[in-house]
Amino acid sequence: MNILIKDIAAAVWKDGSCVVEKKTICIQGDMITGMDSIPEGFVPDKVIEGKDRLLIPGLVNSHTHAYMSVFRNLADDLSFDDWLFKSIMPIEDRLTGEDAYWGASLSILEMIRTGTTCFADMHMHINETTRAVEESGIRAVIARGLSGGSEDESGIRRLKEAIDEMENYRDCARISFMFGPHAPYSCAPEYLEQVIGKARENNVGIHIHLSESENEIHNMQRERGCTPIELMERIGLFDIPVLAAHCVQLTDSDMDILARRGVSVAINPKSNMKLGNGFARVPEMLERGINVCLGTDGAASNNALNLVGEMNAAALAYKGSTRNAQSVSAAQVFAAATRNGAKGLGLGSVTGTIEVGKKADLSILDLNNPQMRPKRNLISALSYSANGSEVDTVIINGRIIMENRELLTIDEEQVYYNIGKICDKLGITGGNENEQY
Amino acid sequence: MNILIKDIAAAVWKDGSCVVEKKTICIQGDMITGMDSIPEGFVPDKVIEGKDRLLIPGLVNSHTHAYMSVFRNLADDLSFDDWLFKSIMPIEDRLTGEDAYWGASLSILEMIRTGTTCFADMHMHINETTRAVEESGIRAVIARGLSGGSEDESGIRRLKEAIDEMENYRDCARISFMFGPHAPYSCAPEYLEQVIGKARENNVGIHIHLSESENEIHNMQRERGCTPIELMERIGLFDIPVLAAHCVQLTDSDMDILARRGVSVAINPKSNMKLGNGFARVPEMLERGINVCLGTDGAASNNALNLVGEMNAAALAYKGSTRNAQSVSAAQVFAAATRNGAKGLGLGSVTGTIEVGKKADLSILDLNNPQMRPKRNLISALSYSANGSEVDTVIINGRIIMENRELLTIDEEQVYYNIGKICDKLGITGGNENEQY
Ligand SMILES: [Zn+2]
Ligand SMILES: [Zn+2]
Repeated sequence: MNILIKDIAAAVWKDGSCVVEKKTICIQGDMITGMDSIPEGFVPDKVIEGKDRLLIPGLVNSHTHAYMSVFRNLADDLSFDDWLFKSIMPIEDRLTGEDAYWGASLSILEMIRTGTTCFADMHMHINETTRAVEESGIRAVIARGLSGGSEDESGIRRLKEAIDEMENYRDCARISFMFGPHAPYSCAPEYLEQVIGKARENNVGIHIHLSESENEIHNMQRERGCTPIELMERIGLFDIPVLAAHCVQLTDSDMDILARRGVSVAINPKSNMKLGNGFARVPEMLERGINVCLGTDGAASNNALNLVGEMNAAALAYKGSTRNAQSVSAAQVFAAATRNGAKGLGLGSVTGTIEVGKKADLSILDLNNPQMRPKRNLISALSYSANGSEVDTVIINGRIIMENRELLTIDEEQVYYNIGKICDKLGITGGNENEQY
Repeated sequence: MNILIKDIAAAVWKDGSCVVEKKTICIQGDMITGMDSIPEGFVPDKVIEGKDRLLIPGLVNSHTHAYMSVFRNLADDLSFDDWLFKSIMPIEDRLTGEDAYWGASLSILEMIRTGTTCFADMHMHINETTRAVEESGIRAVIARGLSGGSEDESGIRRLKEAIDEMENYRDCARISFMFGPHAPYSCAPEYLEQVIGKARENNVGIHIHLSESENEIHNMQRERGCTPIELMERIGLFDIPVLAAHCVQLTDSDMDILARRGVSVAINPKSNMKLGNGFARVPEMLERGINVCLGTDGAASNNALNLVGEMNAAALAYKGSTRNAQSVSAAQVFAAATRNGAKGLGLGSVTGTIEVGKKADLSILDLNNPQMRPKRNLISALSYSANGSEVDTVIINGRIIMENRELLTIDEEQVYYNIGKICDKLGITGGNENEQY
């Protein structure tokens, strides 16, 4: 389909900085083919009017676990260990693949509604989040979560599953893959070395949690006398492309390693605050030129997958933690949520900016909302004033996925119904039968 | 009008904690007259169905400057001094009363849309925010901003204006007043003593900025050898009811004073982060039993007046700053945004909870949103998952102000148009003529 987006305020890059300018955008098939000038012979099948709207590159959620929205608000205001080991993990074990599919669908619904067109996921049930991605029309980089000891049968099995899943979805252009070793504390170095080898063989990057909590650092220092980042450097992880989630607790030398080795960091400010892990050293990462991306983490530790809300947190949290009102600007946050994210996911040439030749992954915000008035400094407004509900239309890979707030690819009622049914089955609150709030 | 809200999940207080239970609520005139049981002879003129909705007490925004939304996103990512003295104040001086009225109307629009039914305002143009409050149907506690030296004509004039404004709006039941001496650094102690005297005479409380930035503390220590809180204690400020905004930089002894003197503190987490002022010691304030309320501050330093977003920041920020995932729970944030706020504004018997005998100030959220699914632990969901756009219906003083997202008392288009016109007039961006983003 050919789509024309007419006279719209569009967030585009110009001489290295992001500006908002009136543009007219042509989409042919899955691609942006015109900006300013209309390609010869272009006849639109559909015209979208730009008046009082803002066009942004679709947001990139660089770290989440989509299936986990089933557990949203199940275990709040607990310590990190009580949250993970006592509340989430025991129920997580009882989740079936079908449950994971509906959880992922709910998350995708929330992401699309708030302007996200692409996400990096780490999951536990192969072919399920993937199926939800394929059906919904969103773009994703999928990583099967991996963990294991050095001689661990289950670790090997999970790695094989990751490779199988890649094979199964080879034909879906919107889906690409990484390997997802969970973290240095849940994967033995020998196992990680195997994963690295297989990643090189299959030409995929690695998506991993690194240096999230103080405990993780203390344990690693005690057991191995180094930081998680130093260990990863030593075993060769950074020889291949890495998307490292969290990186809250970094030494200066850790940051130097990440910068030198071109590691992308997916920060998750809300999850880090909520679990009491504190604030990543984002201003210093940016100073060193580290590719900082933005993620929400899963709905069990946030508890929203709204990247606009996460942009707000990112633009505020580090100003607070460094007591510097000029630290981490709205423009830097916008880059993290779009261009940097795409780069971190290995999709730098595919998505993350509005440019001729890139895939048409675009979100349109309605400016007829009090929080977006006056219509001014819209990059700032996106981080500081918007809440995500302004997004009214979403295009992914050239296809209109949401139009005037109506989802065209997902049956919302069905998702809500099935989520309720799963809660009933698991005997947790949030079900259809036993309404208990 | 008699309104019946049928079978709705309602956030009510029970044995000292807030729970969500199915309720049926009767409203007669401006008051809640039934909960669980329907008063004899009650015939509803209007029935609101509760299915898939959450009823909360209307949120109380305990500190803002409504007229300032004209300056939203005008001066971001600047230092506190550059922001206030170089960017905001020079333009502020050029704002007319009519401009302030439209700014206040825009802010009220945003507050109602996100579930706020009452706010504490400090303004600069008498009769203007007040007029916007009267016309819109919202509830407010108005304070004319006061500043001055000990023998300052303009300080005396402002105080007289504040008293005049009280007289002008004596008949509007939704509007009450405080006096608003801006801060210890902008008011001489002798002037503050006059204000305190007049407040006692007029039986109103005082709304003031206290201990917001490190600079303020350092200057006070240098000039007077004490903290701002200690000075206020000494001159008798706390002899009358005080709503103190910010209180970011407090000593232990400051907190003891606030607790002992029953001062209400309106925290503003987003504004404090954005301006690099850091994090208030909220967990310790709560431990001491201080009445902690929640405010957004003005749109020039936030840049939103969305109290649901502010609840999110409050539930996350202090967990981050104290590295304690159990610090400042969602339930405590909910109390701050409702019951405590009402108390801090001197309206504890009027609003802030859903109770028979209180005014019907209520907000209804639509749970048919992905972020609110599963429907579970809805007090948590309000702080962690909601973004404010879920609010679809708002009742204030028994009157339906917004119904199914349609504003019944404010012409949104007209507000947007006038805000644009003001920007054109002031020669700043955001106007109708010169679209520049
Ligand atoms: Zn994670
Ligand atoms: Zn203020």
